[in-house]
Amino acid sequence: MTRAVVLLSGGLDSSTALAWAIREKGYHCHSVAFDYGQRHRVELQAAARVAKAFGVTDHRIIRVDLAAIGGSALTADIDVPKDQNETNDIPVTYVPARNLIFLSLATGLAEVVKASHLVIGANIVDYSGYPDCRSEFLDAFARAANLGTKAGTLTHDMQVDAPLIQLKKSEIIALGLRLGLDYALTHSCYDPDASGTPCGHCDACRFRLQGFAELGESDPLTYSL
Amino acid sequence: MTRAVVLLSGGLDSSTALAWAIREKGYHCHSVAFDYGQRHRVELQAAARVAKAFGVTDHRIIRVDLAAIGGSALTADIDVPKDQNETNDIPVTYVPARNLIFLSLATGLAEVVKASHLVIGANIVDYSGYPDCRSEFLDAFARAANLGTKAGTLTHDMQVDAPLIQLKKSEIIALGLRLGLDYALTHSCYDPDASGTPCGHCDACRFRLQGFAELGESDPLTYSL
Repeated sequence: MTRAVVLLSGGLDSSTALAWAIREKGYHCHSVAFDYGQRHRVELQAAARVAKAFGVTDHRIIRVDLAAIGGSALTADIDVPKDQNETNDIPVTYVPARNLIFLSLATGLAEVVKASHLVIGANIVDYSGYPDCRSEFLDAFARAANLGTKAGTLTHDMQVDAPLIQLKKSEIIALGLRLGLDYALTHSCYDPDASGTPCGHCDACRFRLQGFAELGESDPLTYSL
Repeated sequence: MTRAVVLLSGGLDSSTALAWAIREKGYHCHSVAFDYGQRHRVELQAAARVAKAFGVTDHRIIRVDLAAIGGSALTADIDVPKDQNETNDIPVTYVPARNLIFLSLATGLAEVVKASHLVIGANIVDYSGYPDCRSEFLDAFARAANLGTKAGTLTHDMQVDAPLIQLKKSEIIALGLRLGLDYALTHSCYDPDASGTPCGHCDACRFRLQGFAELGESDPLTYSL
């Protein structure tokens, strides 16, 4: 049976990626979430809910203090932009080297649990802004991970699966719904209030709401609009 | 002025790499140590001492919980081997994907402090056992880091310097002594006692002692032999 480590933030994309890995590919999945000093730390609860709903028995939370690095609206004292027009700039919510760091930690876990696949929910909507969501990057990462690990050197190649990379948000949601994912369990907002209610105005909320709207479905979450 | 982030564990190699970056290359250096659940956590004090001795004003300690991953004698409840004969196996002190993880975190920091160089003390003695100390890996990593970051994409290429990669331990020590590094400040032992005194029998101690012996110098550390 193919073993995989799924990067599961508890958001819409990573939760759909988990659904794909389990229900479409039949992988035996370990999931991992990162407690990295994010202001939307409530997403960790969503990750645990989603893992449980899919019967994942090994869900881990790895602490990594990206606030010690800073440089992002998600980890430092920088405001999360609301209702901003689209630009070609990399947004201030970009966390320096985040996917590089998370994939590296997932690689370490994959070695220990003998998984040959890393599954990440990177996709093209994020690609417009985040360099670490490009397939060029993911391919280069896989090469580095194979050369730099005991598993890659001695036993088996590790492979990065990014099943959503070419999908729009509405297509991702359609896939998740088809695979039985309950999006009420997930959390996307970068800037929720103290009770965890999503703001409805940050990029993460807006892309999500647009996706549901395009599909003619309603988002099961309640927003503090 | 060229800015660099130096991975500084406080050991013999990384301390020499810092000395090289500052005194040989004239880089403006930021240094970073990792508090990763290692049993030889005392090395963090050594890193801070070495950074101070070289006038580094931005020395950071990033917490990353590799014990949540396990799989190594340095982070899990596995004995550190003593006085073992050389083999071609990857040792149990190998920490899954460690250099991949540490370089990724250093890349994030490099983005924030606008550094174009990452300096790592990887070398050929370790290469005999650790896949993540090979220059092939370091080159592949640099490529991934450039594709996966804002800095690499928009502003400047990031480069990985591994100045010790071809050097034997004795040559590394000779380089450090020439550059004025006081090895009494450093810590190498994987399995020190409660007071931080090195054991003299683990691989890290043995390579270090051999290096000093080959050079006809004496190690300034006191061992609990």
